[in-house]
Parts: sequence; structure tokens; C-alpha cells
Amino acid sequence: MTYNIAILGASGYTGAELVRIIATHPSMRIAALSADRKAGMAMRDVFPHLAHLDLPDLVRIEELDFATIDLVFCALPHATSQAVIRDLPRDLKIVDLSADFRLRDAAAYEKWYGKPHAAPELQREAVYGLTEFYRDALKSARLIAGTGCNAATGLYSLLPAIRAGVIGLDDIIIDMKCAVSGAGRSLKENLLHAELSEGYHPYAAGGTHRHLGEFDQEFSLAAGRPVAVQFTPTLMPANRGILSASYVSGDAQAIHDAMRAAYADEPFLHVLPMGQVPSTRHVRGSNFVHLGVVAERAEGRATIYAALDNLTKGSSGQAVQNANLALGEVETAGLMLAPVFP
Amino acid sequence: MTYNIAILGASGYTGAELVRIIATHPSMRIAALSADRKAGMAMRDVFPHLAHLDLPDLVRIEELDFATIDLVFCALPHATSQAVIRDLPRDLKIVDLSADFRLRDAAAYEKWYGKPHAAPELQREAVYGLTEFYRDALKSARLIAGTGCNAATGLYSLLPAIRAGVIGLDDIIIDMKCAVSGAGRSLKENLLHAELSEGYHPYAAGGTHRHLGEFDQEFSLAAGRPVAVQFTPTLMPANRGILSASYVSGDAQAIHDAMRAAYADEPFLHVLPMGQVPSTRHVRGSNFVHLGVVAERAEGRATIYAALDNLTKGSSGQAVQNANLALGEVETAGLMLAPVFP
Amino acid sequence: MTYNIAILGASGYTGAELVRIIATHPSMRIAALSADRKAGMAMRDVFPHLAHLDLPDLVRIEELDFATIDLVFCALPHATSQAVIRDLPRDLKIVDLSADFRLRDAAAYEKWYGKPHAAPELQREAVYGLTEFYRDALKSARLIAGTGCNAATGLYSLLPAIRAGVIGLDDIIIDMKCAVSGAGRSLKENLLHAELSEGYHPYAAGGTHRHLGEFDQEFSLAAGRPVAVQFTPTLMPANRGILSASYVSGDAQAIHDAMRAAYADEPFLHVLPMGQVPSTRHVRGSNFVHLGVVAERAEGRATIYAALDNLTKGSSGQAVQNANLALGEVETAGLMLAPVFP
Amino acid sequence: MTYNIAILGASGYTGAELVRIIATHPSMRIAALSADRKAGMAMRDVFPHLAHLDLPDLVRIEELDFATIDLVFCALPHATSQAVIRDLPRDLKIVDLSADFRLRDAAAYEKWYGKPHAAPELQREAVYGLTEFYRDALKSARLIAGTGCNAATGLYSLLPAIRAGVIGLDDIIIDMKCAVSGAGRSLKENLLHAELSEGYHPYAAGGTHRHLGEFDQEFSLAAGRPVAVQFTPTLMPANRGILSASYVSGDAQAIHDAMRAAYADEPFLHVLPMGQVPSTRHVRGSNFVHLGVVAERAEGRATIYAALDNLTKGSSGQAVQNANLALGEVETAGLMLAPVFP
Repeated sequence: MTYNIAILGASGYTGAELVRIIATHPSMRIAALSADRKAGMAMRDVFPHLAHLDLPDLVRIEELDFATIDLVFCALPHATSQAVIRDLPRDLKIVDLSADFRLRDAAAYEKWYGKPHAAPELQREAVYGLTEFYRDALKSARLIAGTGCNAATGLYSLLPAIRAGVIGLDDIIIDMKCAVSGAGRSLKENLLHAELSEGYHPYAAGGTHRHLGEFDQEFSLAAGRPVAVQFTPTLMPANRGILSASYVSGDAQAIHDAMRAAYADEPFLHVLPMGQVPSTRHVRGSNFVHLGVVAERAEGRATIYAALDNLTKGSSGQAVQNANLALGEVETAGLMLAPVFP
Repeated sequence: MTYNIAILGASGYTGAELVRIIATHPSMRIAALSADRKAGMAMRDVFPHLAHLDLPDLVRIEELDFATIDLVFCALPHATSQAVIRDLPRDLKIVDLSADFRLRDAAAYEKWYGKPHAAPELQREAVYGLTEFYRDALKSARLIAGTGCNAATGLYSLLPAIRAGVIGLDDIIIDMKCAVSGAGRSLKENLLHAELSEGYHPYAAGGTHRHLGEFDQEFSLAAGRPVAVQFTPTLMPANRGILSASYVSGDAQAIHDAMRAAYADEPFLHVLPMGQVPSTRHVRGSNFVHLGVVAERAEGRATIYAALDNLTKGSSGQAVQNANLALGEVETAGLMLAPVFP
Repeated sequence: MTYNIAILGASGYTGAELVRIIATHPSMRIAALSADRKAGMAMRDVFPHLAHLDLPDLVRIEELDFATIDLVFCALPHATSQAVIRDLPRDLKIVDLSADFRLRDAAAYEKWYGKPHAAPELQREAVYGLTEFYRDALKSARLIAGTGCNAATGLYSLLPAIRAGVIGLDDIIIDMKCAVSGAGRSLKENLLHAELSEGYHPYAAGGTHRHLGEFDQEFSLAAGRPVAVQFTPTLMPANRGILSASYVSGDAQAIHDAMRAAYADEPFLHVLPMGQVPSTRHVRGSNFVHLGVVAERAEGRATIYAALDNLTKGSSGQAVQNANLALGEVETAGLMLAPVFP
Repeated sequence: MTYNIAILGASGYTGAELVRIIATHPSMRIAALSADRKAGMAMRDVFPHLAHLDLPDLVRIEELDFATIDLVFCALPHATSQAVIRDLPRDLKIVDLSADFRLRDAAAYEKWYGKPHAAPELQREAVYGLTEFYRDALKSARLIAGTGCNAATGLYSLLPAIRAGVIGLDDIIIDMKCAVSGAGRSLKENLLHAELSEGYHPYAAGGTHRHLGEFDQEFSLAAGRPVAVQFTPTLMPANRGILSASYVSGDAQAIHDAMRAAYADEPFLHVLPMGQVPSTRHVRGSNFVHLGVVAERAEGRATIYAALDNLTKGSSGQAVQNANLALGEVETAGLMLAPVFP
């Protein structure tokens, strides 16, 4: 069986990454691509690296006929997504890559995104796209909310330990090193090569990064009580890859055991031997996550490390994995691409 | 049908790239991996990015049983290759990635590599691995000599124009910008990040680069007379990618026409519209080559640009493409991976 | 004696580089800084790396009082410069870093820049800022036109050989590798880190780069007949540095001799021993140029290599050197900063 | 007055950085350079970026005549330093850049460096080179022990707050992002461009980094009780720069006040306004440190950020600053070089 896929907002990095992955997917076929500002252009002119593919031209969303589409990936900017998705046919399966449906609570959304949600009923309906923790719900989901790329990295690091009750909940600190493609293809001064190469700095410091909304929601749910972690990202002079260090109290071996147990059968979550640390170079371009646990010299202190590719497992790869579930496909279909190193 | 594959010298970058590609190949199965200095190690300890694959451990070559092997990729260092391949069973198909069998002429080999060839009879037998120009011979080849990565880039740029007789043969200049993985995983000072990042310089200047041996052989053959181009590479602060500019005399439109005609049916050679230029970012991690032709302001002068990934089309991807031919497989099997951008 | 300096257009990279150099200059004092769009801001808020300096706030040009200013560096965008400089007091010394006064011929300006010059009389008055070749004129100049950064690199490479008559004039090809800061701090997609890192490509191909106007002017002048070189730059994944290869016909030794003779007493132009090649890492952040000559394997063919820092010797360092001359200062004052490596 | 300077171990990155700084120092003159394995070579052949300087050739240490030397910078490897320095004339001033004399306690040295100290009496004599905190002792010191580059970054971040008693002492976590030149010019696989670019990972995880010895010594001294922080560095795909985040309990405003007070008169330590964060691009190539304090969303939690150049303020710049003090020179002499950005 072949599924007809539409990608809305196909002119950004996550849109291009969706096309890259689907290009060798055994059962997905790209039937439509939209990009409002680049409507009328051939995809090869927007992304010459996709020139070898036979792809439909970019059109405006209102030109799309959804009658023949099985599933839509929505890679539109935040806020735009909710307005567009609200008006899509009810029988379409939708995987949204924006932030619009990640938070289930209307007040939390307004707190982190600064304005009321335009489709609160969809907000409640959406299933959070952290595949390994929402697998059953995703299989029957109509609307899937892709996680933030940083959020996924932190959640994979900490959820097993929180669920197992083996770490303290009140002193979790997450220090994340984030490659620049996570910021998208936007024209901002600090994303220029001349600024970023040989220059790194924290951003959204002081607990202001929006992915904290996801951390609060999911960690509190897992713990059964409010959990509010500290989290600061640093912008890396690199294109792809998130490396995360989570500083926690707890026994390193117990944490490692909990993680090994939780991820034992997971095809994409690879727990390194005790004491080993991951590197972004070992997951680049792939859907894999490498996780490590290290005991600190102070008794009862441990650090959990995680590395993933923000555009793949952190975004478009995760989206395809979730789409596979929603379509009844093999979960790993199209996603076993090995990392590209060096 | 599944082919059992052995990779000799699997602990270098081209070995790892072979594994990456074969990981999603529909009919190849990695049955054995050798690496003398790392014998006994698991591949995941040498290349953690391949940890998700179920691979045989690294062994010494003499431990290998070739009885069950259908095809060997030989990714050993130059000079070592010829000694090893000479002693392999005669009924094995072999794709060699070293420089050892690229030059058909014993004297040419000695000139460029500084010592006599240890297996001159194999040197004559080997088929040069520039797929698109040796396709028929490759289908029945027993021993295939992978091209130099720079050589492939220059040959793709110029062979159609030389064959069509539309460029001058005595004033060809090739200026190539070459990413560092082409130098392999060797511990040399100029390959350190602290030296190379923000620092680029020509190397093998003055017509001393060994790939000139391949240029001389193939260009002269195509022209039916001796052709000796100028060629200098510059080492790039980048991991993957060769960008080549070939400065020639000739009519740009005629060159473009010749290239379009020669590559019209080629799955991996993509000729850009007249006047457009390629970028390494559009071929990274893939087997594709992007080619462009630009008219210079001086009448009768043109420049031919080419971009490819040195580890894929320049080396391991080319090797798999040739192996597909030698095994009777679909030529593009396992190779339609889209470029990884950004 | 201390000279009061004003910098117009101080919020770009060349403006910041001027401040960096002048910060340790023994006799220059920054008395005024302008930047129209950032008027009212402190320089430390635009360029935090200059926070340790006691600098005047940025103002609009019309707020400046030129009565106390000895010399103005004009780092404004092309076209804006000519309008601003036309209206400056006649008794001011001016070093312009834009392209506006580089071409002495009004028709040539219009050809390369697409519109008539607004101050053709100043165009004729301006002295071309290639210090080592215009030293005497610069000492008495009122208006100095800084060269293009690529232009300087090519001119240093070729002028001695052209003047000495030791190279052919009709087949010169310049292939230049140019770091991204040469494009300024402008928000363009191809200057983003995610596009440029691991991605390099030629630009202004086909003889369309504006610095060709300078090459045509200066090479023709030196040769006493029209000379029209080929020239194509490639955008580098690096912040600073131009590496140039000039492919010429001529005897390498004669070229090297001519260069050694021409630059024997030059404090900033360093000719490497015959056969050696320069690297951008050895000039970064400095006013030095490294030059090398290599004989090709074809008799009568040679390649001239040059490396300089586009922001220093290619722009702001050159400007300070010229200002030193115009002010009667020691030519090297403030400019003996050693390159920053690694 | 001019001081005759010798640099032992001049062929490494810190040796080259010393030469770069001294090149424009008003009162230091490089009289001798040693490098055992490169003895006999000209410095320009080891470091072409220093080719414009008139420097003595490299010699073996035993060839040096210390009679005319006023001060020695010792940039030798750890362990070698102590043996060499033990045998130097007693009337020489010595600034050591190795780790050999940083720890005052013999047992601590043996714990972190794995063998007994060869010159324990010198270990006790040496003054720790954290200039701003040991200024008076440094003025009369004979032997100065340069700090670790990571150690300096962490100490500048935390000492004011610890001394002021405004942060908790038992839950300090330091996450540091460290550029690759801190590892020196050694030929190791993980320092290769192909490994590090696009690949970052923690190292010395689990409280095993040797600079912890310095943290323990200095923080405990400042606190008047044992303090054992957590500290993990991450290797950056960049050449220069350390960015540090120190996660602490305490009131952000009180920490900021303590830091402002402590560093009010310091020429090189720049405290950013409350809530602002530093970037490595704003200190590159300079002796400046940028420090910032940010309040976290949890009450009583704050993060202290610091950025410095590991080769300058973290090593060779610091060494020159200390040498200035020991020689009775102006402390900032030769060190007011502005950062190189971009």
C-alpha cells in the first residue's frame, strides 16, 4: 500500500528533512507540497539537494485538494499551524511539527506563547508525539503534536529515571548544546556564519525557553506531582545535533538500570554502557538517540547525557515515526538510515 | 537474493561509509569485517555511529574464510592492497578502493607511487571504476579499481567535452576544493581542527598530486592523444565535499550540450541549467554529482563546475554502484539516499 | 601628536575592525562614530567585544561636528558613500572603504555598478588605496579609495610579474577562496551557518564580480595595454581569509624574482621561498600578506598563491595604513599585530 | 627598560601565543626560544604566522645561557616542567604554564597527576597565577604557576560569590564548553577536524578532570572549609574560547553585586549588566573575561556565565600579565589587544 502525503510549509529545514526521509520510505509518496511565499516554484529551486526527486511543485495551501491525501505533515510556523489545521478536513491524519499542540493546557499555552490558543479543542485532542511514551495513543491519533527538539532530548534523558523514582525531582538541571538548524532558516544576525563560528553563547537563559512548557507538562505527569526543572540551551557552531547533560541527584547505577529497562526494546534509543558518553557525531542525520549515565565523584550524584539530531529524531524523523504508527505501517519504516559520519 | 559482503580495512572512513550505505542496501549483507590493528574489537567501539547495526566483529585478514563471500570491498591503504588482493581466491569479485589498480601502465604506477607494482598482471586486469564510462566492462569485471575522489570529480567534469571535441586540450586547469575526510583518519598536524578550521591552503601544488596519473591516463585515452592537465587541490575546513572548477577554452553552450547528452540517462549525474553553479551542500552524504557550465566574459572561455561527496560518489558510494553492476544487481540499489542538508 | 578620527558606518564588520586596530594605535583617537540605523546606541551594545574601550556613542552623520576631526574613515555601503563624502568639508582627509571611488573612469563605474556616479569629480580625485603601489600619491591624498579585498589579493599576486613583463597577459585565471566576513553583516540566506558550514560554492561566476573593474583598471595600467583576467571567487565556510591561486604562463623563477624584488622592503608583504604555499591561518587578524610561487609540471606555467585577511589587509588594516601615510605618521603604526593562530 | 625573555617549549600553541603577545609588548624582548624536538629550526618554519618577527632559532634547553635572561616562560608539558625548572638558576624569574606547580599540596598533586612531585619544595614556593586574587604575592614571586584554563574560568565565575558568602557551597555544578586548542597541538583522533566539526561530546566526565584539583584547592581556601564542585567540560568544534555555566543556589542580585564589587577596578574582568550572557566571540584573541549572572525561574537559584579565550587569559595572556607584575611593569602592558571578531 502507498500513502499519499502532503507537506505544508515545505520550504523550511524540517520540510526538506521530511522529503529527504520520505524519499526512501517504502510506502509513502509525496503528493503535494505547500509553501505560501514560494508558491509556484519547483522544489529543486528551493532545495537543490532534492533535485534528483520527482516532486510536485510548491503551491499555496488553498490550492491543495485533500481528497486524495492520506496524511499531512504540517511544518508551518507556530501560530500559523493552529489556524490552518483547524480548517483541515476532519478525516485527515495530521502530524504537526510546530509548537501549537504540544501543550494540552490552554493556560500553559498562553503563558509560554503569549496569546490565547485559536483551537483549544484541538489542543486537547492532540496526542503528544514522544513516540516511545505515547505509542498506543499515537496509533489511533488523528492529530499528532511533534515535540520540541530540545524537549525530546531532555525527556528521553529523564523520564525513565523519574518514572522509576530513582532521582530527586527538585534539583534537576539540564544544560543543552544545540546546533543552529534548530532555529530554522530564519535570517537573524546570530545565525550568520561569521557570528556563530568560533562564537557560542547561551540563549533563552533564566528559564525562559518555551520548551520548558513541555518539560513541566511531561515531567509533572510522569512524577505525579509538579516538577519544574532548570534548563538552558547554548547555541553551537554546528548544523545538526543536540547534546544534553542532565545533572541529577540519584544513584547512577539505578538510573542506568531504569533507562536500560525502559528502552530495552526501543529500535532508536541506544543506552551506552555505564560510564560512557555520547557524541552528536554518532547520530547525525539519523533517527537514533545515544544515552549515557555517569556517576559523579560526590555520592548520590549522577549526570545523564543524550545526543540526537534535532532535524531527524528531534523533528522530522520523529514525525515520520509517528506517521508510521498512525498509518498502521511498520514503525521503523524509512527510518533505519545510518548516521552520516564524518 | 542476498550477497555476502566482506570489507577489508573497515576501520577507516571509507570502510565506515561502506557500512553506512550497505546498512539499507536491499540485497547486500555484511558477513565479515577486517582491520588488522583493531582486530578483536566490535565495530560499535570503533565507530559508535554504527552501534544500531548487527555487525560481525573486526578480525585479521588471515582469519577470514572467503568461501562464503560473494564480493570483497578492499579499503586498505595503498601498497597494502596489491599484496592482499594478489593472494585472494581467484573466484572472488573484488572492488578495491585504494589507488593500487587505477593505473593500467606499470611505468605510470611507478612514476606516481614511487615503487614497482607488486601485481602488474592484476593491474592490467582491473577495470577502472568510473561507472558511467566503464559500465559494460564493470558488469563482467572480477577486479574493480575505484577511482580517486578528486579524479572522479575532474573526469566527470571534462570527459564529455573532451570526447565531443569541444574544448582545447592543452590549457585545461582544474582548481579543486577538497574536504578533509579525503585524507582519511590519519593523525597529521594539518588535519587537526585547530589548524584547519579558519585555515585553508593548497597542497600537492605544482603538479605533484597522484590523481594526476588518473587524469593523464583517462583524458589521453578519451582524446586519443596525450593530455596533461594542471591540477591543484585546496584543503577545505569541512568534512565532506569536493568542489571543482575546470577552466577551459571552448564554447560554453557546446560544452553544456555535450554534458547534457552524455549524462542524459545517468541516475547520479545531474547537469544544472546553463549558467548555474553547484554547491557541496547539495550533494553531502549522497551519491549524486552536480555539474554546471558557465561562460566566461572572454569569448571562447568557459568554466565547468562539479560537486560531489568524496566519501560517497568519490569513494564508497561509487564502490557500491560498481559492486551492484558486478553482481548483476540494479545499479542504483542502496544508493538513492538523498543528500543531508543542512 | 594625536589625531582625532571619525568612523562613519561603524556598525558593520569593517567599522568594528577599524576600532579594533585603532584601539592600540599610538596616535589615533576615536572621536566620533556614526551609524544611522543604530544611532543612540553605545558601541558596546552593537559590538560587545569592544566593551573594554571608552568609545563615543553612535550618532547620525548629520549630528557630527567635523571641525575637530582630522581624518574620517567612511565604512558606509556602496552608493551611500559618494553622496555622503561629496558633502563633507573639503579640508577633511577621508579614507573610504566602499567601492565608490575605486574606479577612476565614470563609464567603468556605471558598467560595474549599474548607475551613474553621483560625484564624478571626486572619482577622479581619489587615490587608489593599494598602498605599496600608490605610496607617494597617498601621502598627499585628500580622498583615498580603499581597494576591494579580493582586488587587493589579486593585485598583490600579479602586479610585480606584469610590471616585470614575465607573464602572459591574455590567459590569466584567478581562483579565489573567500571567507564570509567579506560579504559583511548582511542577512542573506547563503551567509547563514547552516548553509555555509559544510557547503561551499562559487559566486559571481562568469566574470560578473565587481572587483573585475579594479583588476581591469590596474592590470591594464601596469601592462600599458588592456588586460582582462578571468576571476571567480568561492565562498568559504570560514570567517576571515582570502586564499588566491593565479594561474599564469611564465617562468616561475622569473615571477618569484620579480616579486621578491618588488616587495623586498615591504613590511607587510612576505614572499615565501620558491615552491612554498601560503595558508590563511598564518595571516588571520593581521595586516600581513603571504605570497608564494610554484612551477607547474608543464614548462612555462606557474601558479601564484596569496593569502591575506580580508578584514585587515583587505580592508580596515589597509585603511589605517593609508591613513598613516596621509597623516604623516609611521606607515606601520598600529598595524604590527601578529596573526592570531590557531 | 627592556626585559630579556626566554620561552621554553616554544613549539606548542601556548608558546606561539606568548610570542604573538610579546611581539607588541613595549618592554619585553624575546632573547631565546627552546623546543627540544624542533631544535635547530627557525620559528617561522614551525609557525609561519610569526614569519614577520625577528626571532631567535629554536634550541635545546641545555644550549641556553640564562645569564642574560630576566624571565623565563616555561610552556613545557606537565611533568617535564618540574624537572627542568628545578635545575634553573635560582635568580631567574619563572612563569610556568604547565600544571606542575598549581597544587600546593604534594598529596593533592599525586592524586590528580598520578605520581609523586619531583620538586615539592618548589611546589610550596610557587604562587598561584590567578592574577586578580594573588596580585600582591605575584609581585614578589620568583616562580609563578599559571592556572589551568578551565580552572581560571570557573574561579573567576565563583570566587566573588563564595568569598561574599552568597551562594551555597554544596551544590555547585560547572558545565564548561571548551575549544579544542586547550588540548594543545597533539595528534589525537578526537582532535581531528573530521571528528570534531559537527561532533561535540563531554570528556573527563564523572569528576575526573585534573582542573578539579585547582577548584578544590582554591574554592576551599576561599570558603574556609572543603568545597568540592561538580565539573564537566564539553569539547567544542571551535579553536578558541571557553564558555562556562555555573549553576548555583543563591540570590542572583547578591551574586551580581558581589562580582561587580570584586571586579570593579579590574582591567580585564568585565561584568555584564544583570541578566545578560557572554559569548566566546566577544573575547577571542584577547585577555578579557566577560561575566554574566542570570536569575533562574526557581527562587534562590542563579546561573553564572563566563567566557574567556583559553590561549590568552586562560594561559599565555595570563602568563604575560603575571610576568608584568613580577617584573614591576605596568600590569596591562602588551595585553590591551582588542578581541578579534568576527
